[in-house]
This record gives sequence, structure tokens and C-alpha cells, in this order.
Amino acid sequence: MDSEGKSAVTMTTGRATHDRQVDAELRARAARVIPGGMYGHLAVNERVLPPSFPQFWSRGEGAHAWDVDDNRYIDFMCSWGPMLLGHRDPTVERAAARQAALGDTLCGPSARMVEFAELLSETVVGADWTMFGKNGTDATSTAVRVARAATGKKRFLKARQAYHGANDWFTPVPVGTVPEERSLIVEFDYNDLASLREAVAAHSGDIAAIIVTPFRHDPRVPQEAADPEFAREARRLATAEGAALVLDEVRTGFRLDVRGAWEGLGVRPDLTAFSKAIANGHAVSALVGLEALKQAAGQIFVTGSFWFSSVPMAAGIATVQRAVEIDAPELMRAAGERFRSGLHAQAAAVGLPVELSGPAQMPLMTFADDPDRSKAFAFTDAAVRHGVLLHPWHTMFLSAAHTPEVIDDALARTEAAFAELAALVTTLS
Amino acid sequence: MDSEGKSAVTMTTGRATHDRQVDAELRARAARVIPGGMYGHLAVNERVLPPSFPQFWSRGEGAHAWDVDDNRYIDFMCSWGPMLLGHRDPTVERAAARQAALGDTLCGPSARMVEFAELLSETVVGADWTMFGKNGTDATSTAVRVARAATGKKRFLKARQAYHGANDWFTPVPVGTVPEERSLIVEFDYNDLASLREAVAAHSGDIAAIIVTPFRHDPRVPQEAADPEFAREARRLATAEGAALVLDEVRTGFRLDVRGAWEGLGVRPDLTAFSKAIANGHAVSALVGLEALKQAAGQIFVTGSFWFSSVPMAAGIATVQRAVEIDAPELMRAAGERFRSGLHAQAAAVGLPVELSGPAQMPLMTFADDPDRSKAFAFTDAAVRHGVLLHPWHTMFLSAAHTPEVIDDALARTEAAFAELAALVTTLS
Repeated sequence: MDSEGKSAVTMTTGRATHDRQVDAELRARAARVIPGGMYGHLAVNERVLPPSFPQFWSRGEGAHAWDVDDNRYIDFMCSWGPMLLGHRDPTVERAAARQAALGDTLCGPSARMVEFAELLSETVVGADWTMFGKNGTDATSTAVRVARAATGKKRFLKARQAYHGANDWFTPVPVGTVPEERSLIVEFDYNDLASLREAVAAHSGDIAAIIVTPFRHDPRVPQEAADPEFAREARRLATAEGAALVLDEVRTGFRLDVRGAWEGLGVRPDLTAFSKAIANGHAVSALVGLEALKQAAGQIFVTGSFWFSSVPMAAGIATVQRAVEIDAPELMRAAGERFRSGLHAQAAAVGLPVELSGPAQMPLMTFADDPDRSKAFAFTDAAVRHGVLLHPWHTMFLSAAHTPEVIDDALARTEAAFAELAALVTTLS
Repeated sequence: MDSEGKSAVTMTTGRATHDRQVDAELRARAARVIPGGMYGHLAVNERVLPPSFPQFWSRGEGAHAWDVDDNRYIDFMCSWGPMLLGHRDPTVERAAARQAALGDTLCGPSARMVEFAELLSETVVGADWTMFGKNGTDATSTAVRVARAATGKKRFLKARQAYHGANDWFTPVPVGTVPEERSLIVEFDYNDLASLREAVAAHSGDIAAIIVTPFRHDPRVPQEAADPEFAREARRLATAEGAALVLDEVRTGFRLDVRGAWEGLGVRPDLTAFSKAIANGHAVSALVGLEALKQAAGQIFVTGSFWFSSVPMAAGIATVQRAVEIDAPELMRAAGERFRSGLHAQAAAVGLPVELSGPAQMPLMTFADDPDRSKAFAFTDAAVRHGVLLHPWHTMFLSAAHTPEVIDDALARTEAAFAELAALVTTLS
């Protein structure tokens, strides 16, 4: 089925199978030299991902990715977000190679740092200044540091279950962290105005920041758009408290609105954290902010050996320019709508309705009547065997390389996966 | 003086000057869009670095770096450590380009992650497993997390003034951090056995880790080798307490001893943090540890969008293999000895004695009778104008590209800088 690689999927007794030899060998080797064989958000084991999912990858091109056994997938994870324009986008890779021929990690920044900061100022509303880092977590934790420096206050508010990174404050798994480190975090419920107001009231006078994602994208549950009233109230309360409103766009950045995800709502944050897609897979993150916080930002000490590396900044400039030029969010939205409509129709046709929640360009798919997610696991397991990489419980990502033809190819494969799921459900019932 | 670039140094009235036009323009632009115009360890202002130092860089090749005005420098900062084999080492860059043609940030790791972890296990004594990250701070803070997970204890010990990264625990500038976050850190004095014992005794039973650098490399003061007795006592106390001994090799890694910096002392840490030089400037860090801590390491949740990117791992494999093959530490040590001897002789000849403390491959230079560091500032200012990048108060770094010829060229230039300094001192006295 894949003219570019070796045969990725073979239909046998109604079930697609695919070769997993190299992946299995690498897993065995990894188990010896890497704790758990894998760690973090990509952990691959039976609790986290269905059995057919590969752990190790060999290459990517546009909307396609290949695992180490040379199975090809239409990729709806986009490297968990970074691939905004598609794997190895030629414009970005040319810019990166041009800079790499000069130097990457030099004795300080190159002109690329200034150019990239200027471009972000022109593109993102309220990005009066930028501080670059490496991880999304660098950007979100620097945001809190800037807010504390500016306000002299200690606490910060975040939504319950919301992921803002993996440092001791934010990690969803507290193993190895201590309660003291997390004692200054105050939680509220996303989109719940009463809960937000209550959290503010309980700590009024000691709130440095309210950090919030542009929409609710907690794992395992349907995604939720921000209630405009909730966004406005977060802004109002932050202003009233003299706290910084921090928008965590690490996951959403440049996929929803290049001007800023809440610009359409007319709600402007004081600080915004970007990472993932900002350089199409090259490692850089950015905290941008309003002029009013610039002095405080200049007083904190944050750094890293690779924070001034020039290749990711050159890639970032090319990525943001290209995203604006082609209106990447609109391309992804249209492709996402096409995919969502197709999946809805296919699911309805076999009597197993699904919901694709969240923005079209960043959907999360859930099955009706699937409390243990067994349908989602069985379906995505089949989809992977049919050459489509989906996720059973996490935000998925489209890229600007997901053309209508790619979506239609994906839908032809998901149709087969739905048929397998329907047969399985019939057998089990 | 520089056939490859435009004239870098023009002697005028006994003082070398160099063109700074582009750098000045970029600083003015940076001041508008970046807090303080710059941040972190590379901050360039009159408090931190002498006036002739460039802030913006254009390229690097071997032991040489060029600023944005095309002034060429013999580079003794090596990008603040990362350049182990020299800028744009061809072996490393070939490996990186080969991987980049396949993919960098894919939907998960490539085989490079396993190969790199295996190589570290073969190379570094006690590296039974590896977890990769992006920043040195990722590695040191993950070390504490692993130690806390393994021991169930909360506190960790570090030497006063020692730099272990820039997160809220470690940053040397507490602006924007809160005392609560730092309340579980216990400090001792480096090389002071009584102070170490006292710190342990004061919190016996609640110590998760002792984190320590292989030698004392605090800024602004002469560097100090670890007293073997101190290293052994740290090991003994950690074992007695059931705490993890964490060696922070972020700055020293692969420059002193590829097997581990304290291997020569016979002192083996439980965990070691690497970053900087491990991939010759490509962004990756690594926490390695003993089998006994592997299970705990597999239970914590740490991750980042770019932690599994393959290009830096391919670069890291090439870097470590090459460093072992050519015995990079010995090459750098010999070059460093040559440089140190030359500088000592030149300084003595003008009656302004200097000390180059620390290992030859990572020296820090201090002048006798220089309490306000004005001699160090004036000398390094002159050296920069003569085309040699030194640092007035921070560890410097040699690379394997610092051949005897490069050192001799550098010494010809520092001789002129010493002459300028001597003239200045005479004028002022």
C-alpha cells in the first residue's frame, strides 16, 4: 500500500498487521539503558498506548512519518505538535541549513535572535519583547518568575488538570516532588467562573499570576473552547489583582491564530508562552510579554547553554513567516474540518458515534459509551495498522502539509479501521 | 591580521581597536525587543564584561569565532563550554546533517536515542542508564527528582556559590523566586569537610541528595581542585545517609575524563548530569545513573517537546566517539598547559603576575593585587581587541581544535595585550 516504503499494512484474516521487528529489538535494548525503556509524554506501554503503536521512528516528510520498520503513517500527531508546516518543510530546513553552515551555538546570540524577536513583535499582539528558551516548561516557568518579580507576590493560579509543563510545579505525576514546592499553586476549574473567582478571593493580595491555556485540552476528556466570559473574567480579575495573565500557547501557538489565540475574543494576556510549533520542530521556546513587564523580565536570571543557539532561531523565523504567508491556521482548520466530517460520517455509518472536540486543527477524538476507552484504543490500534497515526486520548495535530488529498487518503484508511472496530464490537457483544 | 576576514585589529596610538558598527546596531535593536537587551549568563554590559566584547556573533570554525562585524577571535570560551571538538567539527556536523535529512523532532525517539544511551554506558563509569533532556538544568533538577523519588526524602545539599543551573532552586539571582521554593536546600562550603559533615548532621534522615561539581568553579574567585578527602567524604556521607551523590558535570563533562571526572579519585557518584559539550553544541543534556536508581527514575514524569529529537543525539554519538578516539581531554590538557605557561611568562615579564586556576583545559585567570578586577577587565578588553576571546572572571574552555599553532598565535596576541595593560598600569600609577 505504500509505494515509497515497503508494504506497511497486510490484510490478514480481516486484520491489518505490520512488521514490528526493528521496533521490538530497539525496545528491548532501550529497556536496558533507559528507565522504563522510555519516559515522559511519549511513554509507550500498554497503559498509555495501544499495542500496535511504534515507539521508534526513522523519518518524516510533509504529513507522513515512518517508523523504524519503515511502516508509513499519515501523521496526525505532528511530533506531538511541533510540525506546523509538516515534517522537514523545505523553507524551514533551508533556513536552518544556511545558519548551520555558519554556526549554531556560538559564544552568544547571532542577529537571528533580534530578528526573531522583532518578527514575533510584528506578528503576535502584545509581544513587546521576547525571551527565548529551549522547553515549553522554560517559557511557562519563566512567566511565573517574571510575574513574581514584577508583583512581589508569591502565588499563582492554574486550572485543575491543566498541563503547563513538567517541572516540579506542573508535572501531572508528583513522584519525586515535595508538597512544599507546590504549596503556592492555587487551582480553579477551567471555564468555571465561580471557581476562578473563589480562588482569587481566597488569596487576594498574594497572586502573582493566573496561567491558563487558550482552550481546555486536558487529556482523556473532550476538549472545551474557552467560554468568552471566562476569558474576560480571568483578564478582569488579573488586572484587579495586579497579577499577570499568562496565556500558555505552548500547545496552541500558531495553529489557532498567529496574532494570539484569544485575540478573536478580544482578551489580551500580559505574558504568552510559546514552544512546540514555533520553529517547526527545532528546539526553541519563547516567552513574550507586554512593555509593562519588561523591566521585571530584565531583572531575573534565567539561561541555558543552548538558549542562544542560532539554528532554531533561523528555523523559527522561517516558520513564522511561512505560517503567516500561507495562513497556516486556516489551511489546518479546513483540513481538520474535512477530517472531522469524514470521521463523523464513518463512525455513524457503523453505529459507533464519535466526538471530535476542540478546534478542527487540534482535535481529540472520543467514542460515545466508552468509559474505559477500549473503543478508542481498538480503533486507533487498527488505524495505526492501516497507516494512520492517531491518538486514543490526547490532542492530535494537523499541519499545513495535510492537504485535502492527504485527508482523503487518511479517511480511506480510517474507514477500514472503523470496519475492524465494528466487527470487534459485534464479536464481543 | 586576519586573511580570512576583514582586518580585525588595527593598532592605533598603541591601542588595538576594532570595528563594532553592526554589533552596536544590533544592541540598539535588541534593547527594544529583548529585556535588558540580553539575559542570562551571556549578558553583556559594563558590570559583566569589558566594553570591547562583542554581544552578537556570526560564525565559528574550529578554534575561531567571528563576531557580527567580522572580527575574528581565537576562542577560549568555546560557546561557554559546548564546543569540545571546535566549532562546526566536520565529523559531528556530518552526523547531524545525515540525521537531519531523515528527521529531527519525530513522533518519538529514533534509534539514535538507544545508541547514544548505550554509548554513554560504555564510556562513562556508572552510567547504567540515561535520561536525555535539553538544558543542563533539566539534568540537575531531574537528578534531584530521581533522588527524592528513590529515597522518599526531601532535602538536598549543595555547595555555597556553586552553580547548578538557573531554575528557581539554583539561580544565583533570587529575583522572582520565593523562599519557600528554596527552603529545602542545605548549603555547605566546597572542600570544607567540617562544613559538609555539619550540613549532613543537621538534616540527617531527610537528605535525598548531595549535589557537587567535580572541582570548585565559582565565578570571580580562583578555581579549586576537589580535595580527594572531601570527595571521598561526600561519597561516604551520601552512602551512610542513603542519599544520592550527584556529580554535576554540566561544565566539566568530557573535558576532564571521559570516564567521569572523579574516576581518577576512585569516587563514583550515583547520578551524573551532563550537557554543554556532550554533543559539541547541539542541544541535549543527559542524566546518567546507577542501576539501583533506575526504577525510581522510571517513575518520575519529566519530558519536553524536543527531548527526543534525533539530530542532537546523532551529534552526541559522533562527539563522544570522537572525543574518546582522539583522547580529547589529553589534547586540551596539553594545549591548556602550553597556554598557561605562556601567559604566566608574559605576565611575569611585565611584572603583573597572573594565576590560571583549575584544570589546564578549563582555566580561570586572576591577577595578583586586583580586588576590583580592573586588571582582568583591562587585560581581557585588550585581548579581545587583539583577537583573543578570554573571560575576566569565568571559567574559560579549550577545545580539541586548539592546536599548538593556535595557542602560539594566541600567545603572540596576548603578549601585545599584556604590553597594553602594563602601559595602562604605569599611566595610572
